[in-house]
Amino acid sequence: MERISQKAEKNRLILRPHFKTHQSSDIGKWFTDFGVGRISVSSLSMAGYFTSNGWKDITVAIPLNLLEIDTVNKLSKKIRLGLTVESPEVIRILGKNLAGNVSVFIKIDSGYHRTGIDPSDNNRIEAIIKKIESSSRMVFAGFLTHAGNSYKAKDLKGVKKVHEESRKIIEDLGRKYKDRYPGIVMSYGDTPTVSACDNFVGIDELRPGNFIFYDLVQWNLGICSFEQIAVALAVPVIAKNSGRSEIVVYGGAVNLSKEKLFDPSGRWIYGYPVKLSDSGWELPDQNSFVYSLSQEHGLVKCSREFFSSVSVGDLIGIIPVHSCLTANLSDHFLTTEGTILNKSRS
Amino acid sequence: MERISQKAEKNRLILRPHFKTHQSSDIGKWFTDFGVGRISVSSLSMAGYFTSNGWKDITVAIPLNLLEIDTVNKLSKKIRLGLTVESPEVIRILGKNLAGNVSVFIKIDSGYHRTGIDPSDNNRIEAIIKKIESSSRMVFAGFLTHAGNSYKAKDLKGVKKVHEESRKIIEDLGRKYKDRYPGIVMSYGDTPTVSACDNFVGIDELRPGNFIFYDLVQWNLGICSFEQIAVALAVPVIAKNSGRSEIVVYGGAVNLSKEKLFDPSGRWIYGYPVKLSDSGWELPDQNSFVYSLSQEHGLVKCSREFFSSVSVGDLIGIIPVHSCLTANLSDHFLTTEGTILNKSRS
Repeated sequence: MERISQKAEKNRLILRPHFKTHQSSDIGKWFTDFGVGRISVSSLSMAGYFTSNGWKDITVAIPLNLLEIDTVNKLSKKIRLGLTVESPEVIRILGKNLAGNVSVFIKIDSGYHRTGIDPSDNNRIEAIIKKIESSSRMVFAGFLTHAGNSYKAKDLKGVKKVHEESRKIIEDLGRKYKDRYPGIVMSYGDTPTVSACDNFVGIDELRPGNFIFYDLVQWNLGICSFEQIAVALAVPVIAKNSGRSEIVVYGGAVNLSKEKLFDPSGRWIYGYPVKLSDSGWELPDQNSFVYSLSQEHGLVKCSREFFSSVSVGDLIGIIPVHSCLTANLSDHFLTTEGTILNKSRS
Repeated sequence: MERISQKAEKNRLILRPHFKTHQSSDIGKWFTDFGVGRISVSSLSMAGYFTSNGWKDITVAIPLNLLEIDTVNKLSKKIRLGLTVESPEVIRILGKNLAGNVSVFIKIDSGYHRTGIDPSDNNRIEAIIKKIESSSRMVFAGFLTHAGNSYKAKDLKGVKKVHEESRKIIEDLGRKYKDRYPGIVMSYGDTPTVSACDNFVGIDELRPGNFIFYDLVQWNLGICSFEQIAVALAVPVIAKNSGRSEIVVYGGAVNLSKEKLFDPSGRWIYGYPVKLSDSGWELPDQNSFVYSLSQEHGLVKCSREFFSSVSVGDLIGIIPVHSCLTANLSDHFLTTEGTILNKSRS
């Protein structure tokens, strides 16, 4: 939190962290110590959860689900609600059904090709802006991009390349529209680029989420060290097989999802096991790894040392491949000081 | 339910369906119409849920988690609780801490190599039986296997081969122990073999779970047809991209997990999209498929017909790759008649 909020401050950027990673009102509170008052979420129900926990400025950073206009209307009366739109048709239907005021971000595809408008598609952008301006309930808040293609990079160099390409697109787009709409915000996301890069010219707002925990995906990209990974899944050991040097943990796809990673040793892994300690956990030995997950079982291939140090009935940690999904599947967090942190469950 | 319960009856087998697939008290009730009074679950909390919904005979078909002995003691006073054990050390600790009576199954590895004792490891088996017999709280209930390697088969022929190998192991093991312990049950699981095979000589009890819904994994193995798949995830369409012939649905890894499948057309898919109808859904066209999932986004490559038939704001269905994981991530089910079915969430 400190590092990313300092980076935002140094670059005079709004930090609007994405709370879908932790979904925790308690962790959310910690952010206020770093001056954060604005957040991003990925669903209107998550927006509702954080609204009832006192947050007043929330952007739902995913194209609007038209089936939830009632929730939009409920929330827009309580908070400054930001919505994301990429289609003139959606903005037309939204405009007809709004009962409160909303800020509208236009989603731009800066190269990830998941959602968003091609930044050169002026017609579509203009059509949406026109519809926004024709409604008294809507304010054109700016452009929103997510350089999720940074996750497809092979290493830090690749992440920086994605960032420069995306940043350039945003800078150019901003230059084109900021004369006409001086108040608009160029909102930019993703943990890899925000963590690794330093040039944010043309960008006004950062929306990273995963940095609160990091995970093996980020570690593998060179974004964080093992020491910086701030979450592990606690799992009981339920079986040991010395012939295979394997342990079985009571933690499977219902806890870790099925996110896997091709690790630097050339293995598909679902996590690294670690010994828990009084103050957290030891670092992974990288010779032990979760190689298979079924619904509730995790199969862990172990180094001789790790295998012999663990008994059935022990609780160990699994450093997750993708912390957002693991956190989403958890009921709460336990701090290394023993405090339970509440979370919603989307 | 009808087909599998008739198969069990015809072969004079106990049907003890695995309820981890649906985790629903309402679906559970339907089973009672087919004479089912005994069930399997994969956690003690699930056992607690079904106990409070009236079930009296529950086997927890996963090696015992020693950290939950308090829950064992609570449940064992209310129901006939079956536990699964594969280690003499666990049975020793269990024996020392039991406050109620439990049935104990010994987990045997019939070839899946996930958990379980090698069936030829007489020493270990005898050591466990001896510990069970030395306790007044424990009854040796039998042997439990799960031929999960059937899921690794390429086709129906492969499934049948796995079944015959596993069945032979169980039959031989039963022959060895049934003279001494005539009351023991040889318990066998997994939907592929139970659905596809007809020879159950040597087996006493079936524990399939997935058959209640089936899914694309089962379809791909030749176990079920599209018409037999009884569950789909309803998702809103939030974006369309005509250039890529793609739609984006508001349903991602938090709904479908990240289970993928190499489909008959040689593509890695996370599900097939289908149009919803009044009475359920249309069959997949197999030219449209979910090709990528992030936390909440599903990217669907579409046939021209499917693409043009769908609008932003529509609700469509996704036939899941693995229905157990999708159901686990859902809050409830909606029947094709419009009734909401309650479920727990593990």
